[in-house]
Order: sequence, then C-alpha cells, then structure tokens
Amino acid sequence: MSQSLSPGAIIVWELLGTAVLLLLGNGVVANVVLRKNNGFQAGTLFITFGWGFAVFAGASIAAPTGAHLNPAVTLGLAISGKVSWTVVPYYLIGEMLGAILGAVLCWLTYKLQFDDHPNPEETLGIFSTAPQIRNKAWNLVTEIIGTFVLVGWILFNPVYKNASTGPDFGNAALGYAGVAFVVLVIGISLGGPTGYAINPARDLGPRLAYAFLLPIKGKRDPDWGYSWVPVVGPLVGAALAAVVWLGVHNLT
Amino acid sequence: MSQSLSPGAIIVWELLGTAVLLLLGNGVVANVVLRKNNGFQAGTLFITFGWGFAVFAGASIAAPTGAHLNPAVTLGLAISGKVSWTVVPYYLIGEMLGAILGAVLCWLTYKLQFDDHPNPEETLGIFSTAPQIRNKAWNLVTEIIGTFVLVGWILFNPVYKNASTGPDFGNAALGYAGVAFVVLVIGISLGGPTGYAINPARDLGPRLAYAFLLPIKGKRDPDWGYSWVPVVGPLVGAALAAVVWLGVHNLT
Amino acid sequence: MSQSLSPGAIIVWELLGTAVLLLLGNGVVANVVLRKNNGFQAGTLFITFGWGFAVFAGASIAAPTGAHLNPAVTLGLAISGKVSWTVVPYYLIGEMLGAILGAVLCWLTYKLQFDDHPNPEETLGIFSTAPQIRNKAWNLVTEIIGTFVLVGWILFNPVYKNASTGPDFGNAALGYAGVAFVVLVIGISLGGPTGYAINPARDLGPRLAYAFLLPIKGKRDPDWGYSWVPVVGPLVGAALAAVVWLGVHNLT
Amino acid sequence: MSQSLSPGAIIVWELLGTAVLLLLGNGVVANVVLRKNNGFQAGTLFITFGWGFAVFAGASIAAPTGAHLNPAVTLGLAISGKVSWTVVPYYLIGEMLGAILGAVLCWLTYKLQFDDHPNPEETLGIFSTAPQIRNKAWNLVTEIIGTFVLVGWILFNPVYKNASTGPDFGNAALGYAGVAFVVLVIGISLGGPTGYAINPARDLGPRLAYAFLLPIKGKRDPDWGYSWVPVVGPLVGAALAAVVWLGVHNLT
Repeated sequence: MSQSLSPGAIIVWELLGTAVLLLLGNGVVANVVLRKNNGFQAGTLFITFGWGFAVFAGASIAAPTGAHLNPAVTLGLAISGKVSWTVVPYYLIGEMLGAILGAVLCWLTYKLQFDDHPNPEETLGIFSTAPQIRNKAWNLVTEIIGTFVLVGWILFNPVYKNASTGPDFGNAALGYAGVAFVVLVIGISLGGPTGYAINPARDLGPRLAYAFLLPIKGKRDPDWGYSWVPVVGPLVGAALAAVVWLGVHNLT
Repeated sequence: MSQSLSPGAIIVWELLGTAVLLLLGNGVVANVVLRKNNGFQAGTLFITFGWGFAVFAGASIAAPTGAHLNPAVTLGLAISGKVSWTVVPYYLIGEMLGAILGAVLCWLTYKLQFDDHPNPEETLGIFSTAPQIRNKAWNLVTEIIGTFVLVGWILFNPVYKNASTGPDFGNAALGYAGVAFVVLVIGISLGGPTGYAINPARDLGPRLAYAFLLPIKGKRDPDWGYSWVPVVGPLVGAALAAVVWLGVHNLT
Repeated sequence: MSQSLSPGAIIVWELLGTAVLLLLGNGVVANVVLRKNNGFQAGTLFITFGWGFAVFAGASIAAPTGAHLNPAVTLGLAISGKVSWTVVPYYLIGEMLGAILGAVLCWLTYKLQFDDHPNPEETLGIFSTAPQIRNKAWNLVTEIIGTFVLVGWILFNPVYKNASTGPDFGNAALGYAGVAFVVLVIGISLGGPTGYAINPARDLGPRLAYAFLLPIKGKRDPDWGYSWVPVVGPLVGAALAAVVWLGVHNLT
Repeated sequence: MSQSLSPGAIIVWELLGTAVLLLLGNGVVANVVLRKNNGFQAGTLFITFGWGFAVFAGASIAAPTGAHLNPAVTLGLAISGKVSWTVVPYYLIGEMLGAILGAVLCWLTYKLQFDDHPNPEETLGIFSTAPQIRNKAWNLVTEIIGTFVLVGWILFNPVYKNASTGPDFGNAALGYAGVAFVVLVIGISLGGPTGYAINPARDLGPRLAYAFLLPIKGKRDPDWGYSWVPVVGPLVGAALAAVVWLGVHNLT
C-alpha cells in the first residue's frame, strides 16, 4: 500500500500516531507523578499499561504508514530491506514532530496539576526517561536489549507479509494489540533500570518540548548529558535485531 | 446495515448498550467507594479496567447500531458524514435513557452498600465526574483532549469501512476490544484531572438519576454548576476530531 | 455442530471445561487468602483477573459443546430457543461434576497451604461466595443483575450465529476472550456485594465438595442458609435476559 | 509446515523464542526483587503479567516451529502424536539453549542492579522457582496440575488443526495471546505454592546459568535438591494431559 503514499501523507500519519502515543504515554506518568490526580501514585503496573495501550491507540491510527512511530523501528525496517531508505526521512520528521506535539498536549491536559505541583524539578521525568543508577555504558546495554526485543518482534512475528512500509496486521485495528502487548511486557520486564525509552523520538521529542516550549515554572535542566543514551541505545538495538533477522532469514 | 433500522430499533439497541455501560461503569466506582465491598479501595487501575471493559460489554451488545453509546461519538460521526443527521435524535434518546437506566441498575446492585455508607455526600462521585482542581476552562481542555482521542481513534482506525451508522468491527464481538483498550488508556493516561467523562450521556444521565430518581438518604446537590463541562467538552472534542479527520481525508 | 454430539460427549466436554474454570477460579482465591503463597493478599484486581481468564481457559477447551460451563447460561439458551431442552440435563450433569472436580483439584494444588492456615473457617470463602452484607432479598437482586449482564451479553453479542448449542466464536480459541472480558468486568463492577457467583454450578459444586469431600481440619458449616441465593439468583437473571432477548428479537 | 524444517531451523526458532521468554520472564522478577528499579516491589499481578506476555512475545516469534518453548509442551505433543519423536531432540536443544541465553540477557539488562543488591542470596529466585513450603511430593502435585492445564489447553483448544509441529493459531501473531492468557491465569491461580515453573527449560536453564555462568558476587548454592521437581512435575503433567486428550479424542 505504501508505494502510493506521498511524503506529506507519511509525515501526517506518523505525526498523528506518534502524537497520540506521546500524549497518552507522557499522560500516564503525569497522572501518577502529579498530586491532585485520580491516578496519583497508582504504581508501576498502571504506568506500563498506559504506555502499552498508548501504542495500541497511536499505532492503529497510523496504520496507513505501517505505524512505525519510532525511529528505531524505521531503522530496523530499512536495514532489513522492508522499507526504502528514500522514505526514511519522512518517517523521522513525522515521528519527531508528533512526539513534540504529544508532549505539548500532555502538558495542556495536566496544566492545573503542573501549576499545583510543589516540586517542578520532578516534572522532567514525565516527559523523558532517566536511569535509576546512572552508568551510561550499562544504561545503553539495557536500552539496546529492550529495543532488540521490540524491533525483533516486529521483524520476526509471523504476520509480517512483505509490506513495503512495515508490518501488516490486517485490516483489524485489533491487530495492533500485539505490539501493545510487547511494549507492555518490555515495560514490565525490562523497564526497571532505565524506564524503557526504546524509541529515540519518544525520549528526545518531549525533552525538546520540555526544554524549549513548555512554560513550567522552576523546571530543571533537561539532562542533556544523558539524552543521547535513549537515542543511541534504541538505534543500536534495532540495527542488531535487523542483522539477526537477516541472518535467520538467509539460513532458513 | 443501518438503512433498514427503524427509529425504535436504534433507540432500543443504544439504550441497551448504554445501560450496560453505565451499570458497569458506575458499578466499579461504587465497588471502590462504598465500604463493605470486595473492591473497596481497590485503586485506580481497577476503576479504569472497569470502565474500559464496560465499554466492551455494552458496545458489543449494541453492534447493530454501530454502538455509539455516546453523544460525542454520534456527533463526530455525523459531522464527518458517516451517520445521517436525521437519525441523530434517535441515538441521543437511546443514549440518555440508557445512561439513566444504567445508573438506576447500579444503585439496585449496591443498595445495601448505599444504605450502609456513612458519608452519603460522597455518592455523587459514583455516578458523575468531578474535577480534582476546579477550573472550568482548563477542565474543559482536559475533556476536549480526552474525547478527541476517543472519537479520533474511531474515525481514523483502519477497520472503519463506510458503515452508515458507525465503525464496523466485523462480526466478531471481540472487535470491540479495540474501543475498550482505547477507553482504558484514556482513563489511565488522561483521566487524572477530571475523571474522563468523554461522554455527555455517561455524565449527565446518571447525574439526573442521582438528582431526581434515586432515594439515597442525605445526598448532596448534584453540582449543576460543573455539570455542563462534561457535556460541552466531549462535544467540542468530537467536533475537532471530525474536522481533523475531514482534513486528513481530503489531503490523502 | 451439536446435533451429532452424544450425551456422553456433552457431559465430558462440559465437565472438562467447568473443572478448569473452578480449579483456576477457586485457585486464585486460595492464592490470595492462604498465607505462604506468592499471591497472598494480592488484591481484588488479581482475583477478578483470575476468574476472568479462568473462563477463557475453560471455555476454549469446551468449545465443542458451546462452552456453557454454567447452568444459568444453559437455561438462558434453552429459554431463548438456542438449545434444545432435551440436552439440558446432560449440560447440567457435566457442569456440576466439573465444578466439584475443579474444587478438589484446587484443594490438591494448595494442600500444604490449607494445612498451614491458622483459620480454617475462612477456607469456605475459597470455594463459595458469601455476601458482604447479609440480606437475602437484596443479595438476590445483585446476583440477578450480574447474571443478566453475562447471559444477556452471550445472547445479544453479534457473533451469535444460530449455533444449536450456544454461541459460536469461530474456530479461534481467542474468541472466548470476549466472555472472559465480560466476566472480568462483572467481577470488577458488580462483584462488590456478593462475590458474583453468577453461576449455580460455580457456587454449589465447590460448596458440596467443601462439605462432603475435602478433609480440611476445623472447617466451618457450609452456610447452607445462603447457598440457594447464588443458585436461584443466576437462574432468574438468565431467564430475564432470555425474555428481554426474545422481546428485542421479535421487535427488530 | 513442519515437514520442511531442518533440525537447525527448529533449534534456531525455539532458541530465539525461548530466549525472549526467559529474558522477559526472569526480567520481571529482577525488576520486582532488585531495589533501584522502577518495578521494585510492584506485586504479584505485575509478575504474572510479565510472564504471561513474555509467552506472547516469545511464542509469536517462534511461530514457524509451533512455538513450544517448553519441553513439557514438546512431550505432550509427541505423546499425543502431533509431533514426531524424531524432532523432539532438536526442540529440547533449542529450548534449553534459549533458556540459558535468556537468563544471561536478563543479567546483562539488570547488571547495575545485581551489583547494587545487598542480599545476593536472594537473586536465585530471579532465575528459578522455589516452593513457599518445601515438601517435594506436594510441590510435585502443584507443578503437575499447573502443567496439566497448560498442555491440556494447547491440546484441547479448538484452533488445533493437525499441524505437525504444534498448535496453529493462524497467521496472526495475536493468536498467541491465547497461550499468554492461559499462562497468565495459571500464574494467578496456581502459582501460589511453587511459583509455577510448568516448564523444565524455564527452570533448569536459568539455574544452570546462575550456577555456572553469571558472575554474581556472594551468590548462594543453586538448590539442586529442589531442582528436579520443576523438571519432573511439568513432564508428568504434560504426559497426563496427553493421555486425557487421547482418551477424549477416541471417545468423541
């Protein structure tokens, strides 16, 4: 279906899907972190369900473009030959703009709670990830492994049918529940040490929004020192997944 | 399939589906709020699962009419040209009557617990939403964004196949799990500030039942001052979603 | 498919499915109630997930007979004309024997924990339901409404295709996830006051096993005074659902 | 589809799927047990969701070989005649190597947290199961019953269509959600006493990795005295399930 998609259409669909992903994903953290919310301190399972089904909602909307929503997915599909390198830039543009827009919409949803919060420094964690124990080499390893599972699953799962833009889960929106389940379990099982960015746009887009767009009072520095880890780690993990897929694909 | 549905049939199916939605949706809050319940203080994830799968149960029952169950959904579908404006009144009648009936059934289910509860003033929260921080303009924004995601998802999701009454998820009841997942994640991710009405009938119907039908002793005023926010917000959000859908539809 | 099923086959399939349902359903309560378990005091959401997916596991196994697993479902299908009255006795036999067997298997699974438990009186709650506030008339109402939703959903849901033995969810085992979601939300939303038996076999079978088969030391009386409520309530709720279905079926 | 699979292909696919299963399954326990994790002490429901959807992720990847991922599943399918005994060794090799690899990847993901943990003796529980009350005979019973449900479900569930290597859930990756739901509910309902190994490779592989590969400081003995229970119990449970399936298959 992708041959006929114009660059503008790719950007629009990926932007829409990624904006919904980030609105809902940043939203669940805002709900848990900011007091005077129904979800205040609702726990880690709550957060992982939020991110998991944020993927479901965003991905099914962006079905016309294969619903990458993630530069690591785009890279993995390009390396494995499923997506042409010529369309990669349009995907990346849509993903980054969508991530920034989603973060802004999250802030609008929780505007009163942001204003009320006594510790504005904590609000960076709503938008971007941070490690529990700071050690960039091992934090990278954790992000690489998490993204390897995500992108590996997309490449290896049996519904992949030579679609030129990405996995084809059929007409049913429900098919995207599969990716949602995988993101859910990555969050539950591999999200402990670094908060499972597993998506450069998911981390960098909201960090840029936090740094340059959102008028949160008393906000802290955006932790640029760590910001490259959740960008590089996912890209490396996706590349490894594509290499393994190519190896198995050639063997079997 | 809708051409042949009589006004009475539309009203009956929407009434049935919306009654089940509100019985189960109000029910989970009653379970959590009223002491001497197995679900007393069971937490926010419990509540969001209740509302999410309440949508699944109600929507699959109302499949013959496209399972709107929500005036905002009806409005979004009408603006986008998927539903004729002539049938809109029948949908609204079924939705409002169903919501009132569901609230009454919830009260019957929890009759002993309502009688036992020491703080009858708290019982309004079982039926209708209230903001955590009262500021009608920003509360409106939150409801608009939440409903935008819901109605946007219904309009954009790829199973939408020109059905004249609404989305067509195929014959399988399981298809409505998609909407349930979206309502689940809206509750988890955007429900913090206002309790995610995202449906005028869901909020106004039970509020009317509370104010005029239910013999709860010591009950408080139904908070009419706030009651228009969860009506207007969802309608505005749905209209915006329809406008965006029309724009993208024309572009791509 | 049912015309060719022998009475023995009906009994065997329903027995297998109901035994799995009760093993898993009673099992989750044992896990939460008995100390020295990984799930000790794991909460109400945990319990409702256990019962919900117990239905998934048992129902998909019993697909050849339509997976009633519940005399109330059998009754509702018989009244609505979906199942012949002549096969009803075989369903009931399979359901009751399966429920008793499931309770025994649960006890075997948790044998060490039963022996260790300091308050053997509490163990009745693992097998059968009890109301939070004892008032048989209103407890009946709660059970009637809960079962009305379950049986109504089975009758009204759109995958029902004239199968002679019950709902047909297609070949995919996954189709039974729909019933599991409905039982999950009934537990979450309507299970507060009485523990949602919504199934005479689910409550009476394990109660009989508790009273006459299981060698639990210090066990209490089986509360026969309440035992008819979770039998009669579900049957009345199922009959009401069938009557409503017949009315709507004739109208539309 | 299996006739054409080479021994090497069987080993590769089962290794990949089992590695993902163990990475995610061991991972959720690491997240909950080791402090300085986002999921620290996140509870039993969190753990059971992790293992359940670990099965989803791993099984859908290994679809080409029927996704056994478990020697007990392989045994049950062989006894029931669904899988040739000649390919059984290749399955077992892939499953054991994959389980060991998954445990190593889990350790890499949580390297910093392992180093930080003050009680290295507790880390065995991340990799392998242990009973809450040690009594090998009854622990065996619990593992037999849990595995009976798992393997029985796979044999009896209605999508099983004479595939020579195992159950065929169709092209859709989502079909494996069924097995995930069953493993979820086994964990919730039967996992209390022994931690539901229900899979010899899942328990023995990581135990070997713990004992001989992982450089965890201060680690305890690998509890070889108990280690045969989660191997023998699952194999016996699978054999029983196959015998019951053969009996019912011949009767009906």
